[in-house]
Amino acid sequence: MKIIKQIDKIRAFSVEKKMQGKIIGFVPTMGFLHEGHLSLIDKAKKESDIVIVSIFVNPTQFAPNEDLEKYPRDFESDRKACELRGVDAIFYPDAKEYYYPDASTWVIENELSKGLCGASRPEHFRGVGTVVIKLFNSVLPDIAIFGEKDYQQVAVIKRIVRDLNFPVKILTGPIIRESDGLAMSSRNKYLSKTERENALSINKSLFAIKKALIEKKITIKDALKIIEDNITDSGGCIDYIKIVDAETLIEQNTFKNTIVIAVAVFFGKTRLIDNIIIERI
Amino acid sequence: MKIIKQIDKIRAFSVEKKMQGKIIGFVPTMGFLHEGHLSLIDKAKKESDIVIVSIFVNPTQFAPNEDLEKYPRDFESDRKACELRGVDAIFYPDAKEYYYPDASTWVIENELSKGLCGASRPEHFRGVGTVVIKLFNSVLPDIAIFGEKDYQQVAVIKRIVRDLNFPVKILTGPIIRESDGLAMSSRNKYLSKTERENALSINKSLFAIKKALIEKKITIKDALKIIEDNITDSGGCIDYIKIVDAETLIEQNTFKNTIVIAVAVFFGKTRLIDNIIIERI
Repeated sequence: MKIIKQIDKIRAFSVEKKMQGKIIGFVPTMGFLHEGHLSLIDKAKKESDIVIVSIFVNPTQFAPNEDLEKYPRDFESDRKACELRGVDAIFYPDAKEYYYPDASTWVIENELSKGLCGASRPEHFRGVGTVVIKLFNSVLPDIAIFGEKDYQQVAVIKRIVRDLNFPVKILTGPIIRESDGLAMSSRNKYLSKTERENALSINKSLFAIKKALIEKKITIKDALKIIEDNITDSGGCIDYIKIVDAETLIEQNTFKNTIVIAVAVFFGKTRLIDNIIIERI
Repeated sequence: MKIIKQIDKIRAFSVEKKMQGKIIGFVPTMGFLHEGHLSLIDKAKKESDIVIVSIFVNPTQFAPNEDLEKYPRDFESDRKACELRGVDAIFYPDAKEYYYPDASTWVIENELSKGLCGASRPEHFRGVGTVVIKLFNSVLPDIAIFGEKDYQQVAVIKRIVRDLNFPVKILTGPIIRESDGLAMSSRNKYLSKTERENALSINKSLFAIKKALIEKKITIKDALKIIEDNITDSGGCIDYIKIVDAETLIEQNTFKNTIVIAVAVFFGKTRLIDNIIIERI
């Protein structure tokens, strides 16, 4: 497995493989890999010939008050995990070099980025969109794979790729959960033992409400209220709980098309997100 | 010479040539080709193995009050000119299909786009940046060639390509002028005979002032005043006359580094631009 820091070198690696007719699969990450990331790597292995993983804690998607500095990093552990999983190359750019000091270009998506996480993190998706395009232009993948835990991120990236005609196919992998149901996240390590237990109110209420909605036992309005009460009663401080159309991300009052319940909650200082997709039967 | 309207087909054409080890040169245009465009095609022929020209009057770089509808078009004449010049393929996307009706993504450059044409056409460079990225992702060129008449456009595109790590080398070709010195432009055809004569005040004053500045006979302030008077006396309505640093596009009060005198002037309803680069000796 190669570890490559320079853009021209990862690009040369990719072009060489492409010239041999190989399909390049790409899993962009911020490192501190857990089974969620590794499931995306497994999917990339199945869908492509060569798998490249990027590890880059992207500064432009963090606001000044957010956790850029303390975001967990463990390159050695990530390297081993990638090696074991059969990754062909890690792209590991230097945070200080990857953006020019006078960079002045942004890739901006104006519709799907507005609500949910975009409402409380107004410049987040501008940073995500810009770095994903930089990474695509560095790695030159045929396929890129993103996790559905960041549901809005996936929607925004698919839209950017569609609108700008990027020659990259976007695939997704489902949320991977701990045995007790908490969605895996690099940020889970911030949680105290009590916060960790209380945070289960997120996934428990999402699963319970999914069942109730499918069985038509409750309305959308009821659903939102129940989740809010459950999480708040467990000490969570809610950023948002929304039920949105799975395609447009527009808030729904009725359960007509496939919907997503998307949640962002603080437990202590740690902001967790989770979601559940509910197909209209 | 192929004429290709679909994105997947131009991409397949390009990938096939790349797999043969060919270098793809690209000249994006809005059609109504003149010797300025053709000089860029000639340069592309020299610098690459396969030359693709796009012809697309990009709606997103026109403001509602601008000349999108009446912008001159003559595909048959353009086709012949490309064929004669040895172009390998014309990419000729359908204006109604190239943007999705619900497109919501923009490529935005925030520094170099601000002044000059960006000041009077505030959304122009957002449209330019976005379409150039769409075109690059459609055509997949190794090299792209732009004309220096749109000096600010070149600077913005170079910045976007640098910041987003696009794997495309940007080359430029010098302004091509009519025998009397007027910079070639598809918009020159809008000019009445009198306007056409009066418009020569632009290039005449630019060349005279270049000489005077090099010979250190005048200051920057004098230079701006003389150009303004010359053009205004000829009936031109000035949008801007600026002397800027050739790299940063920041306005200059003294002639320290290489500068550009950039001008936008209306003669009648027709907005013309021109510029002249003056290297510090």
